[in-house]
Amino acid sequence: MRTGAAREEVEDVVTKAKSLGLDVQLNIGTDKTVVAILGSNTGQISTDLFAVLPGVESVTRIMKPYKLASREFQQRDTLVDCGGVKIGGERIVVIAGPCAVESEKQLTQAAEGVKKAGAAILRGGAFKPRTSPFSFQGLQKKGLELLAGIRERFGMPVVTEVVNPQDVKLVSSYADMLQIGSRNMQNFALLTAAGKSGHPVVLKRGFSCTITEWLTAADYLLAEGKNKVVLCERGIRTFEDSIRFSLDISAVPVVKKNSHLPVIVDPSHAAGHYSLVPAIAKAAVAAGADGLLIEVHPNPKEALVDGLQSLSLSDFTRLMEELRTIARSVGRYI
Amino acid sequence: MRTGAAREEVEDVVTKAKSLGLDVQLNIGTDKTVVAILGSNTGQISTDLFAVLPGVESVTRIMKPYKLASREFQQRDTLVDCGGVKIGGERIVVIAGPCAVESEKQLTQAAEGVKKAGAAILRGGAFKPRTSPFSFQGLQKKGLELLAGIRERFGMPVVTEVVNPQDVKLVSSYADMLQIGSRNMQNFALLTAAGKSGHPVVLKRGFSCTITEWLTAADYLLAEGKNKVVLCERGIRTFEDSIRFSLDISAVPVVKKNSHLPVIVDPSHAAGHYSLVPAIAKAAVAAGADGLLIEVHPNPKEALVDGLQSLSLSDFTRLMEELRTIARSVGRYI
Amino acid sequence: MRTGAAREEVEDVVTKAKSLGLDVQLNIGTDKTVVAILGSNTGQISTDLFAVLPGVESVTRIMKPYKLASREFQQRDTLVDCGGVKIGGERIVVIAGPCAVESEKQLTQAAEGVKKAGAAILRGGAFKPRTSPFSFQGLQKKGLELLAGIRERFGMPVVTEVVNPQDVKLVSSYADMLQIGSRNMQNFALLTAAGKSGHPVVLKRGFSCTITEWLTAADYLLAEGKNKVVLCERGIRTFEDSIRFSLDISAVPVVKKNSHLPVIVDPSHAAGHYSLVPAIAKAAVAAGADGLLIEVHPNPKEALVDGLQSLSLSDFTRLMEELRTIARSVGRYI
Amino acid sequence: MRTGAAREEVEDVVTKAKSLGLDVQLNIGTDKTVVAILGSNTGQISTDLFAVLPGVESVTRIMKPYKLASREFQQRDTLVDCGGVKIGGERIVVIAGPCAVESEKQLTQAAEGVKKAGAAILRGGAFKPRTSPFSFQGLQKKGLELLAGIRERFGMPVVTEVVNPQDVKLVSSYADMLQIGSRNMQNFALLTAAGKSGHPVVLKRGFSCTITEWLTAADYLLAEGKNKVVLCERGIRTFEDSIRFSLDISAVPVVKKNSHLPVIVDPSHAAGHYSLVPAIAKAAVAAGADGLLIEVHPNPKEALVDGLQSLSLSDFTRLMEELRTIARSVGRYI
Repeated sequence: MRTGAAREEVEDVVTKAKSLGLDVQLNIGTDKTVVAILGSNTGQISTDLFAVLPGVESVTRIMKPYKLASREFQQRDTLVDCGGVKIGGERIVVIAGPCAVESEKQLTQAAEGVKKAGAAILRGGAFKPRTSPFSFQGLQKKGLELLAGIRERFGMPVVTEVVNPQDVKLVSSYADMLQIGSRNMQNFALLTAAGKSGHPVVLKRGFSCTITEWLTAADYLLAEGKNKVVLCERGIRTFEDSIRFSLDISAVPVVKKNSHLPVIVDPSHAAGHYSLVPAIAKAAVAAGADGLLIEVHPNPKEALVDGLQSLSLSDFTRLMEELRTIARSVGRYI
Repeated sequence: MRTGAAREEVEDVVTKAKSLGLDVQLNIGTDKTVVAILGSNTGQISTDLFAVLPGVESVTRIMKPYKLASREFQQRDTLVDCGGVKIGGERIVVIAGPCAVESEKQLTQAAEGVKKAGAAILRGGAFKPRTSPFSFQGLQKKGLELLAGIRERFGMPVVTEVVNPQDVKLVSSYADMLQIGSRNMQNFALLTAAGKSGHPVVLKRGFSCTITEWLTAADYLLAEGKNKVVLCERGIRTFEDSIRFSLDISAVPVVKKNSHLPVIVDPSHAAGHYSLVPAIAKAAVAAGADGLLIEVHPNPKEALVDGLQSLSLSDFTRLMEELRTIARSVGRYI
Repeated sequence: MRTGAAREEVEDVVTKAKSLGLDVQLNIGTDKTVVAILGSNTGQISTDLFAVLPGVESVTRIMKPYKLASREFQQRDTLVDCGGVKIGGERIVVIAGPCAVESEKQLTQAAEGVKKAGAAILRGGAFKPRTSPFSFQGLQKKGLELLAGIRERFGMPVVTEVVNPQDVKLVSSYADMLQIGSRNMQNFALLTAAGKSGHPVVLKRGFSCTITEWLTAADYLLAEGKNKVVLCERGIRTFEDSIRFSLDISAVPVVKKNSHLPVIVDPSHAAGHYSLVPAIAKAAVAAGADGLLIEVHPNPKEALVDGLQSLSLSDFTRLMEELRTIARSVGRYI
Repeated sequence: MRTGAAREEVEDVVTKAKSLGLDVQLNIGTDKTVVAILGSNTGQISTDLFAVLPGVESVTRIMKPYKLASREFQQRDTLVDCGGVKIGGERIVVIAGPCAVESEKQLTQAAEGVKKAGAAILRGGAFKPRTSPFSFQGLQKKGLELLAGIRERFGMPVVTEVVNPQDVKLVSSYADMLQIGSRNMQNFALLTAAGKSGHPVVLKRGFSCTITEWLTAADYLLAEGKNKVVLCERGIRTFEDSIRFSLDISAVPVVKKNSHLPVIVDPSHAAGHYSLVPAIAKAAVAAGADGLLIEVHPNPKEALVDGLQSLSLSDFTRLMEELRTIARSVGRYI
């Protein structure tokens, strides 16, 4: 309450809390009265309900707004199964492949190369969210078919992005795991549709969303009760201009502390430049990430999308060897 | 090019540019060679195509990535017609109403009050994008019907948000203008669907998107060729924690300089607190905004959504009088 | 306290608080115990003292860390006297002049022009903090002498920047008001030295400092008990790249709410480009700023420092007329 | 140049460039004319000199503004000698100790413990820059004497912070290496004084400064020609609120690419909480950092400053063993 708040103002707050079935305790300090509002669901109640009342200076939330994604809701780590590959366990799962599916030849070369180098899951975009309407928008259904063919041929599970609620069913029929991109992290219509699919989902962090907002978005997926979520840190927007997005390495320990969900790191979209990918990938493994999502292209110079951030197959193979050594040094394997 | 780049590396860049139908000019400096790539569509060509080539240090884009929204594409200011109200002219258009449509009574009181105070357009949310799945999600179709009823009764055009591409048709049949929210500014599936509707659209700036990205998103709407766009600045995410979002007042003159589209300001979502709304609203008018989008609730204490940032009808009426004086001082009217 | 914190852990927190002379109240919720710590100086006690204790999940400060600058410490607005000009009253005080003092001729032309247009105080830098050691560093003592001469001749008070604690005495002997620049807002050695001088000080906001940190820095100046402080918002660092710094217009109402100190706005350093200065200056006046700090140069094209953000004398004169109209529309004058 | 810039406007730009001894090349595109300005010192020339000219749309700097710190100025890695310990070579140098020197007992215990665990250099603050004037400001000269005594007794080099140009001489007479804190990174008076001392300097990155600004600040130190610089990344200010500052892990590879100076990481000030320190420290080693600066306190619960981010001696000892394994996995040692 504001310094000098009237007794009736304090009582209005108390009445409001009680009307919502909450308990209240008053702390009458030297300068200010603090009203503590207690209850098991206070994290999901809007603070505005109290902040609008006269005499209230500010409302501070002690409970987190997310629930299903929280470590308090579930103590043990969640293991997510993607076509037989477990994410969240001792193995560090590397997901690799081209940004966009461009052709059968390109996808075959990529899949063959990343599998040989030790990647567990293939990635490739069929529906591409592009910032400009004049850019290549992906092969769409044709891309999904190519991905499905490659999955059969190489026996690798496949993850691909979905950008429109209407496409969730279609994409789910081809892919082992759905990806929700950074710009769609708070596209709640899409989250709800993806949640209903029952498929595992890689939820990329919005590039300007806090970790709390990210876990709250995961609640949308978990609220449907059927599916599992892998969180993916991919860099946040800051003032620094030497890199496309600043990878928030602390997201790894912070998520581990507050959530039971596995967390992986995408060094490629953060870096925006292939030369910075290896250092970030190594840091992620050392920091405790459960996996990596790396863009690899058989011929980066000819890539239709994001060639600059893609590793060549030989660079990826070299990086995988370094990552294996670091994984061992933190008691894990790739 | 990097210092010491080989002659062949420079030639590869030149060859690439020519293969894309572009012109090239070489600047051979003391330390570095700079390759200038020229052509009328260089703003829409990916810089990665060149940045991946060996010997290239960095690629700097001189042309803007957006086109249809640019002042260069269209010199004269665009006037957007929303149910007979023109946005972008001498009149500063105030759009006001509750965050969410809650009931017929609430909406009627709000519409009556804001109309009397001088608002030109009514706002009200039927589909609400909420960060938590446990929050009130809006009255949906029922809310649209209430809005349409109010429009008839008070003769005020109505703007309301659309959050799912599938709903565009439904929402368009009730509303005079569609709103695309901050978190959906880069929801390209939604932009494309809204663009096809032919309805005017209020495009809110993504809270972490640059003005360049905002105008590029407007290109998605304009690319369909049928509809018109009103840009709405509503605050950006910064480190400052005394306010929900920091209103970027410079967005007003920067948009005016670079685009022909009208730009309005939403002080309510930036402020997050009713006490900060008037100062920001007044600043926006003085800076040259073409309108305001203000949340007003007949009883903020009972609002289901965002009550804290809503003005009461009496506060709104008082603010409108101050705004009228300022509008006159910059040669406009409300 | 963490969910499941032991009784002894709660007791340790209570004991710690009592050992510091503070009161304690326990809120035992369904999921968590919250310990409220009460006392008149809790804003100045480090939260770490409690956060390190076992079982503590987090510590939330309810009291502000600043004290002397707060509206609670002093209810009435502070009026700062700068050579006879009062800042913080009904008059909006415009401080104008060149970024750097370059020559007697340049300073004379600037002073004559800005005085004629209605500026109340002359600004000009003698000691320049430059990001590169290879840039012009200012005329230093010679620049101070020129400023003092101009003050005599035109009867205008003078404000100039001080960058080194050792120079405070020297600068104070020439200037009516000291300026502490954005990059020195948390240079505590300099703040302490300036505080001891007894001179009024313009304290620019650090470009990445919160308003809370800014007011806490003001406490350093006020703690010496002899001098007065004018706060100056000059833009904050964000991700937006169309402007040098994003002017935080909400800083004006937030400071007015939380502090008794006057607050002025520097549109020039925020904008970085003369074409954006007028819109920001007008917005600041409408938002309630007590003054403006504007860079004006008799010949911007020849300026040694920051020419791009300087207004010419004719542009400044035109702007002043517009500002006068807006000032009247908010019940003030220039 | 702006679209449609007049021929005379282009010529004015060319004339200006030539008057500064620079070369010029014109690129006449379909839509715009681009003027390339060439010369060996273009990185140090203000872009404003051109941006103010009529018809100029924007000026893009291709050359970096820093010079002495750049990899182009010196190809080979710099090795910095701190009391016999080499920073920047195969050994990863761990600098550890308490945030503030509090007493002989505290410092002795800390030094003994960190040395035993493998730290190479002792840190401890005698002059403390505190955000509030009401906080503990350090033991000052007495603290320096304690540090010098410990150096003799344990044979460990010592690094300590300097906050006032006047103190540089005093601090240099006690310490092996000076530290310039984050808030002083652009305190140019202090940089110049430290540069003149000839001592090696740890230059912490300003928490809101770009890497380019950081390297330009290093130029201030290097410009005096006598001393060497170790760069220290310590987290940047972002919107994320689960951690005090977001550690910019990409700063490590970016500095390695652009500069010859060694770069170390301070996980403690970034994390703000001891539980996040180990993950960040491990990530830094994996990413290629040349060292770490870690806060360790014999009794964090009793620390006068920053106890929450300090590791206990046992936590530090455990971390050092993990770091040794990771160091080996990237071909280095501690």
